[in-house]
Amino acid sequence: MMTKNELTIIKVGGKVVEEPETLEVFLDDFAALPGFKLLVHGGGRSATTLAARLGIETQMVEGRRVTDASMLEVVTMVYGGLVNKGVVAQLQARKVNALGLTGADLNLILAHKRTGAAIDYGFVGDVDSVQGSVVTGLIQRGVVPVVAPLTHDGAGQLLNTNADTMASALAVALAAEFKVRLVYCFEKPGVLSSPGDDDSVIPRLTYTMFQQHLHAGIINEGMVPKLHNGFDALKSGVSSVIITNIAGLAESGRGTTLMI
Amino acid sequence: MMTKNELTIIKVGGKVVEEPETLEVFLDDFAALPGFKLLVHGGGRSATTLAARLGIETQMVEGRRVTDASMLEVVTMVYGGLVNKGVVAQLQARKVNALGLTGADLNLILAHKRTGAAIDYGFVGDVDSVQGSVVTGLIQRGVVPVVAPLTHDGAGQLLNTNADTMASALAVALAAEFKVRLVYCFEKPGVLSSPGDDDSVIPRLTYTMFQQHLHAGIINEGMVPKLHNGFDALKSGVSSVIITNIAGLAESGRGTTLMI
Repeated sequence: MMTKNELTIIKVGGKVVEEPETLEVFLDDFAALPGFKLLVHGGGRSATTLAARLGIETQMVEGRRVTDASMLEVVTMVYGGLVNKGVVAQLQARKVNALGLTGADLNLILAHKRTGAAIDYGFVGDVDSVQGSVVTGLIQRGVVPVVAPLTHDGAGQLLNTNADTMASALAVALAAEFKVRLVYCFEKPGVLSSPGDDDSVIPRLTYTMFQQHLHAGIINEGMVPKLHNGFDALKSGVSSVIITNIAGLAESGRGTTLMI
Repeated sequence: MMTKNELTIIKVGGKVVEEPETLEVFLDDFAALPGFKLLVHGGGRSATTLAARLGIETQMVEGRRVTDASMLEVVTMVYGGLVNKGVVAQLQARKVNALGLTGADLNLILAHKRTGAAIDYGFVGDVDSVQGSVVTGLIQRGVVPVVAPLTHDGAGQLLNTNADTMASALAVALAAEFKVRLVYCFEKPGVLSSPGDDDSVIPRLTYTMFQQHLHAGIINEGMVPKLHNGFDALKSGVSSVIITNIAGLAESGRGTTLMI
């Protein structure tokens, strides 16, 4: 059997991508990473800020943004334009051949509008399929995809889609071709056993431990969807899932949570 | 000598791309066009609208937008996000394998910030180079590039760039590989000899005629940069330049201006 090439998929969100200084540090580290790579970014805080400036109220339910037509315009502008193109230009300045993408571009990620939930989330999409071969082709030609958390339904409708889920779906789709390392890069150094204490990083987290911690109320609510996505990815062929912050990205293995 | 494949480059701007019904008609026609194709779009009206909603004043000098840091954010959001991704999703719905691009993506179009003008245009870029080979590769793999009027300086700075100029620069860069037909699609059926009268289309316009009309004050001021771009393209190997509206796009040759 041929050895697969390694591919690092990094999902970066929150403050990391939205504070210019932090973003610079992150992009330096990202550019320095060896091998094939792909970046998925968020941008929720900027979307909330723009919405507020436009007099559009942001409504979050269980960490997910309710997305009516006005809010869809906001996230399309912020995720697909402001954040995505800013990151692409800054990576090009670092000699990384970045290409900004949404799920609509090249028909990469098809999704359907979420229905049947107790809450009407509006134009929020759940991923149906990822065209892994298209992304593989780009990566093998030296392109570094920079993916914004937007998908489409194939009938002309853009949909707001959770960036963690997109990173996980891309990781699974690319696991056939690559040895995929999926990294969730956010503010905290890893999964914490006591929420306020950054020194309480759980270095290795099994699914059994996750369930135990969950029942014991140890794991922070905001982490739960991320961890579910991560374990789903591991079950579907992704080699490793790491939860860390910028410091952990630069010095792999130090103060990070490895999900196993 | 091998016969070159035909490539149609359409620049669509103004009302065409910003009114949902007109856009639908245009995209139907664009999807139906045979052969290789590439779309460059504008979005100035939407940018002005968003700017106004954000309390940012739009200042135009000789048809060009003065682009300070706030306005650059606006055009990055509108051109790179709202308009570009909307068009991409709608083309995918029409089975056109669209890929949204700015000049920063794949390092396609390098520009420099305009300096030395009597007016400080801010973050406005004049095109230095187009990586034709990258676009050619995409087109030959069946991809239809949808290009937003943004470039970068290679040092991390996005720049607002005139869409007509970008279309012309792309046409010239691709003329080495393709027989390029460059179409400027806007509200009017062509270049008019009397501005208010849509029946006064000049069917064939030579450079000599253009200069005569220009001196006689016959040609509308707004048309002048478009025509300069067009003649530059013709001089640099582009096969034909056509100025028309949606009707002229569908029924080629009827009520259009062919520049020769």
